[in-house]
Amino acid sequence: MPYEAPLGAQRLAIEQACRASGLADVPAVRETVADVADTVLESAGRFAREVLSPLNPIGDRTPTRLEAGQVVTPPGFKEAYRRFCADGWTSVAAPAQYGGQELPHVISAAPTEMWAGANLSFAMCPELTVGVVTALQAHASAGLCDQYLPPLIQGELTATMCLTEPQAGSDLAGIRTRAEADGDAWRLFGRKIFISWGDHDLAENIIHLVLARISGAPQGVHGLSLFLVPKILRAANQAERNDIDVLALEHKMGIRSSATCALALGERGGARGWLVGEPNAGLACMFTVMNLMRLGVGLHSVGLAERALQLARAYAGTRQQGRGATGPNRPIIEHADVRRMLLTMKALVHAARCLAYTAAAAIDLAHAQSLSDAERAAADRLASLLTPIVKAWVSDTAVEVSSLGVQVHGGLGFIDDCEVSQIYRDARIGPIYEGTNFIQAQDLIGRKVQRDQGATLERLLARIECDAMALPAAHAALGALRAQLLRSVGGLRAAARVLIERSAVEPDLIGTVGYHFLQWIGVTCGGWQWALTAAAMLPRADSDAQARALVDTASFYGAHVLPRTTLHEAIVTGGAAPVANAALTEL
Amino acid sequence: MPYEAPLGAQRLAIEQACRASGLADVPAVRETVADVADTVLESAGRFAREVLSPLNPIGDRTPTRLEAGQVVTPPGFKEAYRRFCADGWTSVAAPAQYGGQELPHVISAAPTEMWAGANLSFAMCPELTVGVVTALQAHASAGLCDQYLPPLIQGELTATMCLTEPQAGSDLAGIRTRAEADGDAWRLFGRKIFISWGDHDLAENIIHLVLARISGAPQGVHGLSLFLVPKILRAANQAERNDIDVLALEHKMGIRSSATCALALGERGGARGWLVGEPNAGLACMFTVMNLMRLGVGLHSVGLAERALQLARAYAGTRQQGRGATGPNRPIIEHADVRRMLLTMKALVHAARCLAYTAAAAIDLAHAQSLSDAERAAADRLASLLTPIVKAWVSDTAVEVSSLGVQVHGGLGFIDDCEVSQIYRDARIGPIYEGTNFIQAQDLIGRKVQRDQGATLERLLARIECDAMALPAAHAALGALRAQLLRSVGGLRAAARVLIERSAVEPDLIGTVGYHFLQWIGVTCGGWQWALTAAAMLPRADSDAQARALVDTASFYGAHVLPRTTLHEAIVTGGAAPVANAALTEL
Repeated sequence: MPYEAPLGAQRLAIEQACRASGLADVPAVRETVADVADTVLESAGRFAREVLSPLNPIGDRTPTRLEAGQVVTPPGFKEAYRRFCADGWTSVAAPAQYGGQELPHVISAAPTEMWAGANLSFAMCPELTVGVVTALQAHASAGLCDQYLPPLIQGELTATMCLTEPQAGSDLAGIRTRAEADGDAWRLFGRKIFISWGDHDLAENIIHLVLARISGAPQGVHGLSLFLVPKILRAANQAERNDIDVLALEHKMGIRSSATCALALGERGGARGWLVGEPNAGLACMFTVMNLMRLGVGLHSVGLAERALQLARAYAGTRQQGRGATGPNRPIIEHADVRRMLLTMKALVHAARCLAYTAAAAIDLAHAQSLSDAERAAADRLASLLTPIVKAWVSDTAVEVSSLGVQVHGGLGFIDDCEVSQIYRDARIGPIYEGTNFIQAQDLIGRKVQRDQGATLERLLARIECDAMALPAAHAALGALRAQLLRSVGGLRAAARVLIERSAVEPDLIGTVGYHFLQWIGVTCGGWQWALTAAAMLPRADSDAQARALVDTASFYGAHVLPRTTLHEAIVTGGAAPVANAALTEL
Repeated sequence: MPYEAPLGAQRLAIEQACRASGLADVPAVRETVADVADTVLESAGRFAREVLSPLNPIGDRTPTRLEAGQVVTPPGFKEAYRRFCADGWTSVAAPAQYGGQELPHVISAAPTEMWAGANLSFAMCPELTVGVVTALQAHASAGLCDQYLPPLIQGELTATMCLTEPQAGSDLAGIRTRAEADGDAWRLFGRKIFISWGDHDLAENIIHLVLARISGAPQGVHGLSLFLVPKILRAANQAERNDIDVLALEHKMGIRSSATCALALGERGGARGWLVGEPNAGLACMFTVMNLMRLGVGLHSVGLAERALQLARAYAGTRQQGRGATGPNRPIIEHADVRRMLLTMKALVHAARCLAYTAAAAIDLAHAQSLSDAERAAADRLASLLTPIVKAWVSDTAVEVSSLGVQVHGGLGFIDDCEVSQIYRDARIGPIYEGTNFIQAQDLIGRKVQRDQGATLERLLARIECDAMALPAAHAALGALRAQLLRSVGGLRAAARVLIERSAVEPDLIGTVGYHFLQWIGVTCGGWQWALTAAAMLPRADSDAQARALVDTASFYGAHVLPRTTLHEAIVTGGAAPVANAALTEL
C-alpha cells in the first residue's frame, strides 16, 4: 500500500498553526497560503506516493553500499532524485534571491513531512541541503553564496553537516579536525563519522560543512570554525577530487538507504575548504543548520508516525479475526483494543503535526517584514523554545506510534516484508541524531528557559491556558481535556520556577529531571493543539462527521494521553534525589 | 563483550520468590535450592557466556536459511546445541520419571533467563521442548510418553507448537487444518504459519504439536484436537519423512536465527499424527504448553532486558564525553541523565526478574506434595493469575529497557555491529507472540479475575498491601514507595470491582481498558518486589554498599516508575467512553 499524503489533516494543521502563531495576520503569508498551499500539497503528495513510496522497501532491502570507495544508492534512487530536482522540490523553501521559491516554512513543512512518510532515507538528503542553504545565506561570504547557493537550490549539489568524530559525539568540545591556512583558503585534516549522505551518486558534487579547529585556536567549542569543503573542486572548468575519502559505510538498524559515512579529510595533503563566518564562531553558524534540522527531525517523525497509522489502519480494516455481534468474523478495527491503539496513534500524530507546524509558523513569523523588531524577536524566541520540544517529543512519539503500528499487525508486523516493521526501525534514529533527546532537554532548560528567566515559556503557558479556557468546562467530552490542561500548565509553571532557581546550585538537576520536564511540556503542547482543534470543530460537530470525529479524538487525547502529565510531574518534582543518591559503582 | 549471567541478582530473586510465595516452607524445595542452585547457576552462566553469547551476533548477521526445502542454522549453532544437550541443559526441569532432573521452576527460571540473555533465537528452541514435554506428560497416552519423552528430554528431538494459520491468528476458532482417522493414527492436512523452529538441522527429528479439526468436529475452538506429528516417522528401524514441507522461512526484524517456518501438512496423502488427549479438547491441552511458554516469554524478556543493561552499563563506563568537575572528560555514566536511564533499566530489570521468578515459584508450589489440595489449588490460581501479567508486562518492559539501552549508546546503538541494536529488535517480538499482550489482558480479566469474582486477585493485592506496610512509613527514601503502593492497591481493588460488575453488560469494557489494567497491575507488582527487596536489605544498608544500592534503587522505582500507576488508573477509570464513542469510519 503506497504512502498517501494526509492532505486534509495537513491543511488543517497549516491553518491551525497560522491562527495559533499569529501568522494568519501577516497578509503576505496569508495570501500565499490561500494561493498555493493546496497545489503544493497535492503535487507533493502525488510525488511522495508515486515516486518515493515505492522505493522505500527497496532501499531497506538493498541498502546503499560502498563500491571501490564510492557510495552506490539503491536501484531507482538516482532517477527519483533527478525527478525531485526537476519538479522543483529542492527549492521550495529556498531564498528567491538565489533561485528558490521561498515558500513559508508553514507550507514547506507539509512536503517535508511527506518525503519522510514515504521514504525517510531519501528525505534526509534534501533536508540537509535546506539547512545548509540557510546557514550559508546567513553566515557565508557573498562569493561563496553566489557560487554555491544556486546549484544547491537546484539540487545539482547536495550538502552535509560534519560534526561528529569518534571521540566527539554529544560533546563537540572534543573535535580534533584541524584547519591550516593555505592562501585565501584552508586545508583540513581529520576524521568524521556518522555523516548522513556523506557520499552518494545522486548529484555530481557534495558540499560538506565541516567543524574544525584552526591551528592555535582555543580548546573547547569556542575554538571551532566552520568550513565549506566540496567533494569535487572546480577551477577553470577542471574537476578535481578533493582530499576526502569514504572510509566506511555504516550498516544500520534503519534508514538503511541513507548513506552514513565515515570520512577522512586530508590523507593526501589536506582537503581544500573555505571559511564560513568568523573564525572560532563555527558552532554558532552550525546551529543555524542544526536548529532547522531539529525541526526537520520533528517533521520527519510526524511523517513516519502518520505512515505507521496508515499501514495499521488499512491492515485493521481488512484483517478478519474474532467473532462480532453480527457474524462469525469481523475486521479487527472493530475490536476495542485495536481501536484504542489506532486512536492513540491518531491522537498523537495530529498533536505532533500541529505542534511541529506551529514551530514552523513561528520561524516564518520571526522573518515577517510586516512585523516590528520586537514582534519578530518574540516569534524567534518562541521558535527557539519549541524547536527542542518538537525534535524530542515528536521523535519519541514516532517510536511509540510505530511500535503500536507493529502491534496492530501482530506477527506480520515483525516480518521484513511488512513495511511497518521498517517504519519502526527507521523511527528509532529520531531520538538519537541531531542531538539526543536529552541534549534537547538540556537546550530547552539550560538555554531557552533559563536565558530569559522563563519569560518565553510563560508566554507559551499563558497561551495554552487561554486556549484551554476557551473550551466549554461543562462539555462532557472536552471538560476533562480542559481541566487537565489547566492543571498541567499550573504544574509546569511551578516546576519551571524551581528549575530556574535551583539548577544554578544543583548542577545535576537538569540531568536528573530534564528529560521528563521536556516530555511534560511536549504532551501538554499536544493537548493544547487538540484544544485548538476541538474548539474550532465543536460548532459543527453535530452536522459534520469529520468534525465530530476530531472532537472525539480530542476527548480521547484528554483521557488516554494527557494523564501522562501527572507521571512526568511526579518525576520532575520528586525524582531528582533518587538519581543523585544512587552509588555509581553499584549501577 | 560477552553476556555475563547476573548470578547475585538471580540468587537474590530466587530467595525472594521462595519467601514471597511460601515455597521456602516446603522442605524438599528448600533443600534443593540450598544444595544445587549455586552450582546450576554458575555452570549455566558459564555456558551462556562461553557458548551461546558469541553466537548471538553471528546468528543475527547470517540468519537461519532455507536450502532445498531444509532449514540450515547459522555457523556454530549445531555444535552449541550438541553441547547444550551433552551438558544436560535440556533436562533441567523435565520429569525424573523420563530421565529429567526435575529441578524446581524457581531454579530453572535462572538458566532460562540466561539462555535468552545470551542468545534468544537459540533459547526459544529448547524452551518449546520444555513446554511440549509438560503437555505430553499431562495429556498424552503412556505409549506416546514412553516413546517420545526420553528423547525429547535428552534433546535428541525438539518440539514445536503449530497453532497459527493465515486466517487464524489471535482467534484460533478459524483453524482449518483437518485430521482424518487412519487406523490407530490420523492423517493431517493443512497449512501452518509462524512456526518457531518448525524445521532445522540441530536435532535428528522434530515433534510438532498440531491443533487441527477432526472431520465432522464442531466449529470454533471447541472442535479443535491436538496431534503429535513427527517430522520423521520411525518404524522397524526405518526412517521415513512425514508429509510435512517447509514452504517458506520468514525474514524477520529480530530473532533472525530462530527458524520461523510456514509448513504444509498433507500435500502427499496426509501427515501421519497421533491424538494427544481427548478429541475436541485440543485447546485445553495446548494451553499447558502455552502457559509455560508465556512464563518463558517473561523469563526471556528479563534476559534481554538484563543484557541491554549490561551492554549500556559497560558502554557508559568507558565512553568519555562531556566535562566533569574533576577534569576535561568523564565517562558518561557520571552524567545524570545517563544515570537516570541506567537506574530505570536496573529498577525495571530487578522488578521483572523477581516477579517472573515468583510466578515460577507459584507453579512449584502448585505441585508441592507436602501441601494440602487446597493450598496447591490456591498456588495454581496465583500462578495462573501471574502468568499473563509476567508475559505482557515483562515483555513490554524489555522493549522499553532495550530502547533505553540503545539511547545510552547514542549513534552507536543504531549500528548493526552494536549488540544492543539486536537486543532492541529481538525484544519487539515479546509483546506479540504466545498471545499478544492484549490477549494476555483479556485472559487476565476475562478468565483469571472474573472466574473467581476477583478472589485470587484480592489475595495478591492483600499480600502486596501487607508487604508495603512492612516498609517504614517515615523512611525518607522508602516512605514514598510505601505510600504509592498502598494507594495503587486501593485503586486496583476499586477498578477490579467495577470491571467484574460492568464487563458483563459492557462487552467492550475489557477491550477499551484491559491493556492498561494489566500494565497497572504489572507496575504495581514490580513495586511489590522492590518493597520486599528493600525490607530485606534495609537492616544492613548502613554497612553494606550492595544492600544500600538496592534500597536506593527501590526508592528510585518509587519515584520514577510507580507514578505510572496514576496514569494507568486514570485511563482505566476514565478511558472507556472515548474509545467506545469514536466513530470507526473516521479512524
